[in-house]
Formats: sequence, C-alpha cells, structure tokens
Amino acid sequence: MSFTEFPSRLLEEAVNEFASLPGIGRKTAFRLVMNLLRRNPAEVERFGESILRLRSGICYCKVCNNISDTEICNICGDPKRDKSIVCVVENIQDVMAIENTRQYKGLYHVLGGIISPVDGIGPADLKIDSLEEKVKEGGISEIILALSTTMEGDTTNFYLYKRLSKYNTFITTLARGVAIGDELEYTDEITLGRALNNRNPYQQ
Amino acid sequence: MSFTEFPSRLLEEAVNEFASLPGIGRKTAFRLVMNLLRRNPAEVERFGESILRLRSGICYCKVCNNISDTEICNICGDPKRDKSIVCVVENIQDVMAIENTRQYKGLYHVLGGIISPVDGIGPADLKIDSLEEKVKEGGISEIILALSTTMEGDTTNFYLYKRLSKYNTFITTLARGVAIGDELEYTDEITLGRALNNRNPYQQ
Repeated sequence: MSFTEFPSRLLEEAVNEFASLPGIGRKTAFRLVMNLLRRNPAEVERFGESILRLRSGICYCKVCNNISDTEICNICGDPKRDKSIVCVVENIQDVMAIENTRQYKGLYHVLGGIISPVDGIGPADLKIDSLEEKVKEGGISEIILALSTTMEGDTTNFYLYKRLSKYNTFITTLARGVAIGDELEYTDEITLGRALNNRNPYQQ
Repeated sequence: MSFTEFPSRLLEEAVNEFASLPGIGRKTAFRLVMNLLRRNPAEVERFGESILRLRSGICYCKVCNNISDTEICNICGDPKRDKSIVCVVENIQDVMAIENTRQYKGLYHVLGGIISPVDGIGPADLKIDSLEEKVKEGGISEIILALSTTMEGDTTNFYLYKRLSKYNTFITTLARGVAIGDELEYTDEITLGRALNNRNPYQQ
C-alpha cells in the first residue's frame, strides 16, 4: 500500500509528523496513527498534551545543563551529593546511564555534544565555557571526563584537558579495559593493549 | 540502560506515552522523545497539535463511515463516482488500498471491523444495520464484499449475504486466485484449487 491519497488531511498531517521521527517509516507512522484513532479521546489528548508540555515545560539545569523540570535539577539540588567532584558527559542519556550504576555520588556537567569537526561541532557549540567558569571558581577537587571512547571523545578529552589543566584540579577519565563478561579472544587489540598497560593489583 | 529514574517527570510522561504505541519499546520511545527535544519548539508544538487535532477533528463520513475531515467524505461527495455500486470493506486501510489500484469508481461502506467471535466482535458491533438500510432504500445495483480471505472474512461474507440477499441487489466478492508474481509451486492448495475452479477464458 503506497500513500498517494489520504481520506483526511488531519490524518495525513499526523502520519507526516510521526514519519519525521528517526527510524519510523510511513507505514509504521500510519499504523501508529491508526492506533491513536482507535483510543478514546481523553487518552489521545493526554498523548498530545504530553508532547506539548515536553518542549515547553522542560528546562535545563542552570548548574549542569541536565534536563530538569526545575531551574536546578534533582542531582545538583541534592545536599547529599559531593559537590567537589564533577563528571563531564556528552548528554543526558549518559547521566542516566551513570546514575543507574548507583556508584557515583558527585555532580555532572552535560556538554550537550562532543567535538566533531565532521558534523561541524566545535568547542564553541558545547557548554565548555561554563565548565571552565565552574572550575575557575574553585571548590572542585576532581573532574572526571566520562566521554565515549571514540575519536571524537578522545579529541574532546584532549581539548578539555588543555583548557582545564591550568587550574588546580585533578582530571581523570573512566578506566579503559576489558568489559565485564567479554572473552579475551574476541576483545580488540587496542582495548586489550590498554587493559594490559593499566593492569591492577589482584584483589580477592 | 534501564530506566529506573528519569531526571524529569515531563520526560518520563512523554516516554510512557510513546512506549504505549504498538511495536515501540521503552528504549525506542526514549530515543524518539530525545529527538523531539532536540528540535525547535515550533516543530514540537506542531507535532503535539497534530495529535490533538487528529482525535478531536477527524470525523467519520455519515454515508460510508470512512475517515474524513467533513461530514460527507471526498469519495461519497464526488459526483463522478458511481453511486449504484457499494464496496464493503473492513476498515479505512482497505479503502486506501483499493483507491490506490485506481480501478474502482463506486462508493464504499466501511464496516469498522469483521465478525470475530474469538475477539468478541459480533454483527451488532459493526456498521451492518446502516448497510442494510442503504440497500433497502434501493438504488444500489451491486454490493461487492471485499473482506479478507480469512475465516473471519468468510464468516462476515456469509452473514452479510444472508442479510442482504433478500433485497434485489447483485452481491459479488473479490476474485480469489493465484496472486500476480506468485509461482504455482509455492501457492497453497486451497488457493490453487479455487483458481482452477474459477478459471477464465484466455485473453490475449
């Protein structure tokens, strides 16, 4: 079934909107819209309203740029978190991933991206100035660079290190090594090489 | 990444709404919502509004139950269509599929489903009374039963035939046979048997 003609302009508009989402084709979009049409009006209204509220209501934390419903996010506002450690991440998905480990009790700083010349993203497009301000103000003992282990991540790490190392702050990165559950046989040589160089004393 | 905690309630609500759609899991829903968040506010507003308008603005044609922006749909309102032929279909997707063939110039009647005791759908749940009214009023020379070739479709065909055959209207069904492009070797025996019984004179 191709979609040359829709019986309704409203239907067509809704299908077009859904089809604009990544990974959703026109057939899937049509299926989703038909599902909405079969629901009761209150439910569909809630769906539409949640999208309207999402963009207008969500703000970004003034301190760390994390997504938030309030000016200061739950993490930055939590008196139990250690304000002397700041973990620098690319986006809020990374904040959620680290939060889910339940291993980290410091604060975050969300860059909103990563330096990527191919995509035309330079340092000025990221929240690096505000990070430098934070470090300059003092009170931060450690900056953890928790970026992806890609070329872009390494570039951004290098750039951040250059800019932040002049302040009296300890700069660390996540440990690189063999992932839990990985078999050595199938681990790539760069990872395995780094894991060998960064070997740790055996702990029982 | 599991989603134990969201940094924002609005974000969580939007993810829940998207995850309620068929075939969309929580990870995909999150990805879609993050895509919306990266767009400019006007675009997201248009998305939300299109969903709100969809359910409140769309109506069903008073004549054929097809989806429509107006009381009478484009097809029923078109003076060039042959009003003496009515094609009975299950849903509006079927109307669109037949319209896309560009072979049919009559009207439609959308049942809004198919008789399916397993799903608890009986004749009273479908738009059969209004179809009978239409036929009783006269002026219809042919009813084409264009339902799926499933057990439910056959049941519905049989029921409709029983109810409509007392009026002086010619009742037909779609031709059953070997699909265009199908190899005989892989055609199921019931289809092949029907195609043999309903064979047509060869036309050059």
